[in-house]
Amino acid sequence: MIEDKSQEFTSLSKLGEFGLIEHLTQHIQIKQPNTLKGVGDDAAVLDFSNTKTLVSTDLLVEGVHFDLSYMPLKHLGYKAVVVNLSDIYAMNGTPTQITVSLAVSNRFPLEAIEELYAGMLLAAETYNVDIVGGDTTSSQKGLIISITAIGHAQENEIVYRSGAKPNDLLVVTGDIGSAYLGLQVLEREKEVFKVNPNNQPDLEGYTYLIERQLKPEARKDIKDLLEKLEVKPTSMIDISDGLSSEILHLCKQSGVGCNLYEEKIPIDPQFINTCEEFNVDSTTIAINGGEDYELLFTIDLKDFDKIKGNPNLTVIGHITEQASGANLVTRAGQAIALKARGWNALTED
Amino acid sequence: MIEDKSQEFTSLSKLGEFGLIEHLTQHIQIKQPNTLKGVGDDAAVLDFSNTKTLVSTDLLVEGVHFDLSYMPLKHLGYKAVVVNLSDIYAMNGTPTQITVSLAVSNRFPLEAIEELYAGMLLAAETYNVDIVGGDTTSSQKGLIISITAIGHAQENEIVYRSGAKPNDLLVVTGDIGSAYLGLQVLEREKEVFKVNPNNQPDLEGYTYLIERQLKPEARKDIKDLLEKLEVKPTSMIDISDGLSSEILHLCKQSGVGCNLYEEKIPIDPQFINTCEEFNVDSTTIAINGGEDYELLFTIDLKDFDKIKGNPNLTVIGHITEQASGANLVTRAGQAIALKARGWNALTED
Repeated sequence: MIEDKSQEFTSLSKLGEFGLIEHLTQHIQIKQPNTLKGVGDDAAVLDFSNTKTLVSTDLLVEGVHFDLSYMPLKHLGYKAVVVNLSDIYAMNGTPTQITVSLAVSNRFPLEAIEELYAGMLLAAETYNVDIVGGDTTSSQKGLIISITAIGHAQENEIVYRSGAKPNDLLVVTGDIGSAYLGLQVLEREKEVFKVNPNNQPDLEGYTYLIERQLKPEARKDIKDLLEKLEVKPTSMIDISDGLSSEILHLCKQSGVGCNLYEEKIPIDPQFINTCEEFNVDSTTIAINGGEDYELLFTIDLKDFDKIKGNPNLTVIGHITEQASGANLVTRAGQAIALKARGWNALTED
Repeated sequence: MIEDKSQEFTSLSKLGEFGLIEHLTQHIQIKQPNTLKGVGDDAAVLDFSNTKTLVSTDLLVEGVHFDLSYMPLKHLGYKAVVVNLSDIYAMNGTPTQITVSLAVSNRFPLEAIEELYAGMLLAAETYNVDIVGGDTTSSQKGLIISITAIGHAQENEIVYRSGAKPNDLLVVTGDIGSAYLGLQVLEREKEVFKVNPNNQPDLEGYTYLIERQLKPEARKDIKDLLEKLEVKPTSMIDISDGLSSEILHLCKQSGVGCNLYEEKIPIDPQFINTCEEFNVDSTTIAINGGEDYELLFTIDLKDFDKIKGNPNLTVIGHITEQASGANLVTRAGQAIALKARGWNALTED
């Protein structure tokens, strides 16, 4: 889109920093009753007088977390917001505000940043959160996005990572692995394109995988669902770095072990087909691939009947004593220690 | 400091992302009673049930906002926190928490990031705020710091930018211009060093200027001072981009004009001497140089007696009707329209 030469572009330096902020934030409409003051002062003013405040922050760096050669800017803006909101849902809270900071190199024209921001505004609308502040600046190289999500919950509603106990059931929402595999499909098409730029990418048959990668959604429905089912998780986390890595977080912080059953892991038929085509082990991808933004949680065994058969929820294992370790139990019945191979931005290998 | 070859350095890739977060956050001690849960879950949990919540965020980019050739990493960490807290003080609030996100290129060893974080921890201790979350990741180039400051205030204490009215007095804390001039001194010494690396920088005679640039403090004392004086500002902003630019923000958001008197602008003797040495106009530097992190506010005329003679506060002008514009009244009595030449990261000239 940045390459479309038929369009007139506006240099960011024409606007300056304050001009850019004003330009981008002019369409923001405050919707949350607890936003007393949004963009435009030294700080936003929020009212959490009847609840506890939740705060989470993420930093996304071009070339590390996203590749603009296949990530449309509007999708990137949407996704950047969604991944932050996911952290608030993972506390069993409701996100209500975000702040958005952007560092942008001069290679981006205003129209590109508008596209990015349009995606953020769309996500804010979809998830009913207010954009209440932020910062824009130039960068020496590439695009950097920093988002802080703010939300709230009643104190007794909040679910930490640390509450899992032996015999609890391990539950995951939706299906997993597809976002990572979608990335592999996009990477492959990028390589094909490099060799022959006239080659149109062939993405038919991978639409679900690609949507999971380019336009993930956070599970805003789960809090209400669990409330209706009258289940309060004992611990919860969102799956950003891969199931394996997140299970290990829960186990470590709760001081427990677990058994994860290979045959129970929910995966999509398109995911299975594509794993076969790529000749990769579907379980390896499903437990190590990240960016699904599903929720992983534990519930008391006595709550099993309440969630049984719900199409959004799959029981994938159970919590054990810490001494037993965190294990994957294969279809053959073999227990293998789980490792956090998840997407680890600072490790080279 | 990064250049000290006698020390053994640890590669960041050895630790990985989770390892780095754990390593950096291990010394954090929670002190604020309203921090219910800090680092270590999907989100921090805070209690603002008796007050309003204030949120502000800033993004600092190497090569744009700081130059590591003369900015020690520990100072940088300290300053990065201080500039964010300043925004909360500028709302007449009290900062209580921060989140810290870092993107770091692999050229930094762990020890460098530890230095940076040590500065942040020191600032957190000095200003009595908790570090409650954050993110670390790699960057393609340079160091990027994103900080979100969270604080609180009673609703009737909060001071916005929009409350100034004609006849209010314009007041500034401390003195201004020195932080910018300190930067010019450091830039000069850097050029000297480039020509002759054996030349030791001559910083005697500039200690105040350099301290203002490298180790600025936020005005955490002003809220209490004004409370004791029984003065509530009608509008307030912190001086990060230069007095001129901040006055224009206040005027625009309050729908007023103002007269700023050149002769009233508080500047330090070392600042005056150095302006003479550099052959630059001290008023131009004082009103356009940024990064002083003093507070600029307006008070009702009837409160003048309460602040008169206070060594922390200087009346520098008064608010007028919007139609009169925002003017600098020179020593010769000439009125010149103020312009926001302040430090504008996205403008090239």
